[in-house]
Amino acid sequence: MKKIIPALLLLLIVRTQAQEAGPEAARIADRLVSMALTNQTSYQWLRDLGSIPPGAGGSADYFRSIAWAENKFRQIGCDTIWRQPVMVPGWSRGTTETARISRSTWHKGRNLVVAALFPSVGTDPHGLRAGVLEVQSTAELVEKKALTSGKIIFFNRPFDQSQINTFTGYGMAVDQRINGAAEAARCGAVGALVRSVTSRHDNVPHVGMMKYQEGLPRIPAAAIGLEDADFLSRALAAEPDLQIELNLSCQNLPPVESCNLIGQINGSDKTDEIIVIGGHWDSWDQGDAAHDDRGPCLQTMEALYLLQQAGIQPRRTLRCVLFTNEETGLQGAAEYGRSAEEKGEIHYAAIESDRGAFTPCGFNVTTDSLTLLRLQAWLPLLHKSGIEWIRAGGSGGDIARIRNARALFGYVPDSQRYMDLHHSANDLFEEVHPREMELGSSAMAILTFLLSEEGL
Amino acid sequence: MKKIIPALLLLLIVRTQAQEAGPEAARIADRLVSMALTNQTSYQWLRDLGSIPPGAGGSADYFRSIAWAENKFRQIGCDTIWRQPVMVPGWSRGTTETARISRSTWHKGRNLVVAALFPSVGTDPHGLRAGVLEVQSTAELVEKKALTSGKIIFFNRPFDQSQINTFTGYGMAVDQRINGAAEAARCGAVGALVRSVTSRHDNVPHVGMMKYQEGLPRIPAAAIGLEDADFLSRALAAEPDLQIELNLSCQNLPPVESCNLIGQINGSDKTDEIIVIGGHWDSWDQGDAAHDDRGPCLQTMEALYLLQQAGIQPRRTLRCVLFTNEETGLQGAAEYGRSAEEKGEIHYAAIESDRGAFTPCGFNVTTDSLTLLRLQAWLPLLHKSGIEWIRAGGSGGDIARIRNARALFGYVPDSQRYMDLHHSANDLFEEVHPREMELGSSAMAILTFLLSEEGL
Repeated sequence: MKKIIPALLLLLIVRTQAQEAGPEAARIADRLVSMALTNQTSYQWLRDLGSIPPGAGGSADYFRSIAWAENKFRQIGCDTIWRQPVMVPGWSRGTTETARISRSTWHKGRNLVVAALFPSVGTDPHGLRAGVLEVQSTAELVEKKALTSGKIIFFNRPFDQSQINTFTGYGMAVDQRINGAAEAARCGAVGALVRSVTSRHDNVPHVGMMKYQEGLPRIPAAAIGLEDADFLSRALAAEPDLQIELNLSCQNLPPVESCNLIGQINGSDKTDEIIVIGGHWDSWDQGDAAHDDRGPCLQTMEALYLLQQAGIQPRRTLRCVLFTNEETGLQGAAEYGRSAEEKGEIHYAAIESDRGAFTPCGFNVTTDSLTLLRLQAWLPLLHKSGIEWIRAGGSGGDIARIRNARALFGYVPDSQRYMDLHHSANDLFEEVHPREMELGSSAMAILTFLLSEEGL
Repeated sequence: MKKIIPALLLLLIVRTQAQEAGPEAARIADRLVSMALTNQTSYQWLRDLGSIPPGAGGSADYFRSIAWAENKFRQIGCDTIWRQPVMVPGWSRGTTETARISRSTWHKGRNLVVAALFPSVGTDPHGLRAGVLEVQSTAELVEKKALTSGKIIFFNRPFDQSQINTFTGYGMAVDQRINGAAEAARCGAVGALVRSVTSRHDNVPHVGMMKYQEGLPRIPAAAIGLEDADFLSRALAAEPDLQIELNLSCQNLPPVESCNLIGQINGSDKTDEIIVIGGHWDSWDQGDAAHDDRGPCLQTMEALYLLQQAGIQPRRTLRCVLFTNEETGLQGAAEYGRSAEEKGEIHYAAIESDRGAFTPCGFNVTTDSLTLLRLQAWLPLLHKSGIEWIRAGGSGGDIARIRNARALFGYVPDSQRYMDLHHSANDLFEEVHPREMELGSSAMAILTFLLSEEGL
């Protein structure tokens, strides 16, 4: 019974608190869900934003999209809207990205679909011709060190479909993309080709960040589509001395100024306590960035809009933050955190949306165990938007630099389709379903409402 | 405390039982999920089955698909495979289904996209020309009875997007389709056009069953696409005396023989106790019937296959039933129930899959409250396939005629996209995601395993 008595006490606390968020809160939650599903505002915003190509932080397209978002914050009724300047890495993909079989009895001249990883150096303008060594891991690379010198290393470990959470499958394969080039360079290789980290079997390359290591040569690195990766693997088995010619015109450039964009609705009562909600506004230059992370950003903007439309004057200050350059190393998040600390701002809570705009599942939360129980008492209200659970877990990179908040939340929608699209030309507006997206907007609106009005 | 003590006892019971389904069961559940996600067998089956058009029970295509399924049951390793003959209604859509604006200053000659509802009578071969009266409900129809004689009644109440469960939205609109023609006939109307019951705003008609009433004229009835429904509503507002010409060549035919198909794996121990798993094998003649209900049927077939592949010799008898003619009034379900009762078969439990092949959410179950608690103790295992809950609720029409089972389950995947596709040409193979589908197969495999091996 020793364990049961405290458990019962906690249950009683939770019950009491759940009753606090009473019928009026339930009515508001119903209204938020109903408005989101009926008006489909963030979905219409995403369609509209589609006229501006997604782009790296600091690019002309990025600033066009920032101006678009400023206008939207005005429409939402924000009291203050400001840009927070952030210096970010400069890099250009350039116009040439090709790989061609340059030595082979059977397949000479055949093109492979590739896309440079960030911040890859380009190849010599006449191309990089080399033999290819396929490996499944850096461990295998080290084993085969006698064969690596002067080669392009082809990291070809597949995505593990058996994982129920596709972020787990992604995490198990992405080391090849992040560390492949540096580890290949350490072994004397001259280039790296990485099997795209994706759950869909097509020929679309999935890009992303990689990391060079100081003291090691910076060799060109690119992602390759899955169909061509399978082809190359088969061709190499038949002709191990096959060569390819890689041509990448990408280049590193001086740092440029980008910005976070912040839209704020002032709290009426606990004005000093800030609740942040947001995602990252930068994206890879592939597809529409519809799920990563434009759609999820628009969900957080709509969360504020829904509260305004419902006539709620929040007690706490609500701040929607569109972070720059999550994709290239979280420079926007670092600046937001630094600035908040410098100004001595009090952050009450933060919610990040960066896992796609699919059907809601739950919220991961970084907090203490008593607050977690308190939060779980809100589940009957959050369930109105499809939220099934609130669990201890990592929130997200962009809000991780916010210190001393009582709770940091990561919005978790269904992951099954996300890695099909992530960082690729598959990430299109057409892949977003309006009802799935809108349920996410309403889930975050309800959570923001409860955090602001009920408090923890 | 009065209420707490029994609650604690129940918790203890549940805990004990949960421990019963121990590490070995957890290992098997992991294996079933991993095999499903890796091999994607039912998804490949669905692709393969796509070469046979879906069709009404008793049609030549239906029997071709039955032969395909028999072959699959053999491949699965069923001990017995048999067809259960069922007489079903005869009906033919025919080759003509058109609606054209036949009197209008602005829009004369414009075509509207329509599709006949089952079991609509056809129009006169020269077409049915009549004025159109738009209503939102049968209540409005009765109010406007003075205007209804000789008209085509246009039921145009939209799908309510504000409902989080799209089956609720469907339920709130589908009365127009089911009862519209009969109620229109009661008011002297000569035809019925029904706004398609769907959550996607396109111009694809969604068909389905309607009901004539004895003693009332049987008037032609068709579904109309949403874009044309909106157009027609606008055109009628401008020109209330607009007329349309409806041409439907559908016709009622004598009953034909169809069949349920049953594949059985004999239990090793409790052989007399039958666990049914299945869905309906008939479908509307639109699209691929990928989500309604071929995909979900294949999930239930794969559930057996996964158990066989995992080397499980079930204690209880497992029976996969592919029911005929759910869509036209559950004739297959009625025959299965009648036959089971006649033979005195003992049905231990049944699982129905007829809500699409989307990401798993939970199981609805019809059972007593103590068994429900017992079942909920299995959630940690079912969660491996994404199942979040088991709740009291309706299981499904095809297994509802099975008597005296301890529990009847309805598999519940995410509903957000289902009504976009349901009963329409949108219900294509391309709308099925392999991982979402396979998680459903594994969810039902785990539940079947637990029912068979652990028991209730």
